[in-house]
Amino acid sequence: MSRMIRVAAAQMGPTQKDDRRADTLARMIALLEEAARLGATLVVFPELAFTTFFPRWLLEGETLLAHYERAMPDTRTRPLFDRARALGVGFYVGYAELTAAGERFNTSIIVTPAGEILGKYRKIHLPGSVEPRAGARFQQLEKRYFAYGDLGFPAFRAGPEWSEAIMGMLICNDRRWPEAWRSLALQGMELLCVGYNSAAYDPNGGETESAALRTFHAQLVVQANAYMNACWAVAVAKAGEEDGSGLIGGSCIVDPNGVIVAQAQTLADEVVMADCDLDLCAQGKSKMFDFAAHRRPQWYGRITAQTGAILPEAGIS
Amino acid sequence: MSRMIRVAAAQMGPTQKDDRRADTLARMIALLEEAARLGATLVVFPELAFTTFFPRWLLEGETLLAHYERAMPDTRTRPLFDRARALGVGFYVGYAELTAAGERFNTSIIVTPAGEILGKYRKIHLPGSVEPRAGARFQQLEKRYFAYGDLGFPAFRAGPEWSEAIMGMLICNDRRWPEAWRSLALQGMELLCVGYNSAAYDPNGGETESAALRTFHAQLVVQANAYMNACWAVAVAKAGEEDGSGLIGGSCIVDPNGVIVAQAQTLADEVVMADCDLDLCAQGKSKMFDFAAHRRPQWYGRITAQTGAILPEAGIS
Repeated sequence: MSRMIRVAAAQMGPTQKDDRRADTLARMIALLEEAARLGATLVVFPELAFTTFFPRWLLEGETLLAHYERAMPDTRTRPLFDRARALGVGFYVGYAELTAAGERFNTSIIVTPAGEILGKYRKIHLPGSVEPRAGARFQQLEKRYFAYGDLGFPAFRAGPEWSEAIMGMLICNDRRWPEAWRSLALQGMELLCVGYNSAAYDPNGGETESAALRTFHAQLVVQANAYMNACWAVAVAKAGEEDGSGLIGGSCIVDPNGVIVAQAQTLADEVVMADCDLDLCAQGKSKMFDFAAHRRPQWYGRITAQTGAILPEAGIS
Repeated sequence: MSRMIRVAAAQMGPTQKDDRRADTLARMIALLEEAARLGATLVVFPELAFTTFFPRWLLEGETLLAHYERAMPDTRTRPLFDRARALGVGFYVGYAELTAAGERFNTSIIVTPAGEILGKYRKIHLPGSVEPRAGARFQQLEKRYFAYGDLGFPAFRAGPEWSEAIMGMLICNDRRWPEAWRSLALQGMELLCVGYNSAAYDPNGGETESAALRTFHAQLVVQANAYMNACWAVAVAKAGEEDGSGLIGGSCIVDPNGVIVAQAQTLADEVVMADCDLDLCAQGKSKMFDFAAHRRPQWYGRITAQTGAILPEAGIS
């Protein structure tokens, strides 16, 4: 037996702040159509896929709110949903969510091939700051523009069209936090989707890591966490030079051994595809990473009892 | 400023069950002397370094207990301690511990260059089984021969001879469990030592992963956890064909970017060395992985509240 899903990572090239919404949506539909043509039934788009990565700008009022979605889908995004359902393809997509109560979240959803929302996730590990950095050309204001996710790390069991996969979502920086992966794996997660916008360099010209090192980091955490949680992972970038600020690519599909089975070669719109056999998770989940047999939570107390580090005293104990 | 420690990974080739204890100790002292000659002040030996990996055999009574140390050091192991102190070199070493009360642990210690025991750790993530596998030539009986570690994951602050490094220890399989690394990093850990004996193939000839894949896994988890916890890591194998069962090598020293800066080239006794600047941890600890700023423990509850996975219900939520 095998439980196969053909998955496409739909990497997106840059979206400039002056790009028209309809043009960006047309690019997404083109990626969806290419993925469907290749036989994929799940397409994974990036974080904040419908716009530029706007937390790099200090914005206010309607200029800020224009980046948010008040309903998903609404009239602006419905063509993507309609085309996906017509093609029998589901998708993960990240977007800026504005609730009826006025709350704002960095959110993702998984939509089934039948067009139903299987589940929603709101980003918990928000990087950046609340206050803008004085004098800096580029900001990272996610902590200003979004509330911390309030849905926890829910896993969702798909229907037969996706082989009853147990699916999880993360968003960008979340993937660097092993607690996030583990919280999903403790629900049996077999397939993780994560979209990202990750800087390729410091756009303000400060001390910086190379784009190659940042891409290595991005893939390393996905590979190791996929292995340690015995799941497939699909990590998808918005990439390239966006509004004068660089984003890494490196979109990839990783198997439960932590091996990259497919990866993007460009910093542009690009579909990367793999056949993911969910039954390959069973080896890890039943042996090396049989949580019930081997975890020792009575010794993990610091992970939930404290937020920051508490240093030991000096000297021989 | 930099806070430098020159560290040596002292990989050991195989130790057969009929090898004399004194001969194995002489190999360890030779590795220690080579590391000291190269200027190292910290030498990391493997797990269960003084003997063959005896949990592969079903043993009883004195035949089993002969593999354990009743005191560290005792007359058998004291020559290593004496030579280290004379050379001004400290070390991490793994051994089988038998307490006065008759408890048995898979244990490691860090000994300072002055010959004092800085700290002790007892392996928490014991793989294998309590009951032997009927008919199998080779066993994995760690759960039979050792009690689960009862010291938690303590970090220790070294003295000025090691630049006041905050040090942690893990043993073998522990390194695949991100909870273990995080528990240490939540104490500010800057340098992690881990020794291992990891199978290169299934010695009973069952379905198996290649030695290359197993070595990849072993390095992947060390690289990613070093990066996600912004620490140095020194991972040291007992390697090669031991008692007709194969052990991977791949000993390595990894920087806080998750980059391997030095690694073993053989499956034999081999010293690998690197200069580890503890101040390189500060970048990660103060920015990307500033735990106090970015962790959200209120959402990590499953990690401590449950041991095994609890699967979600089917259907649209």
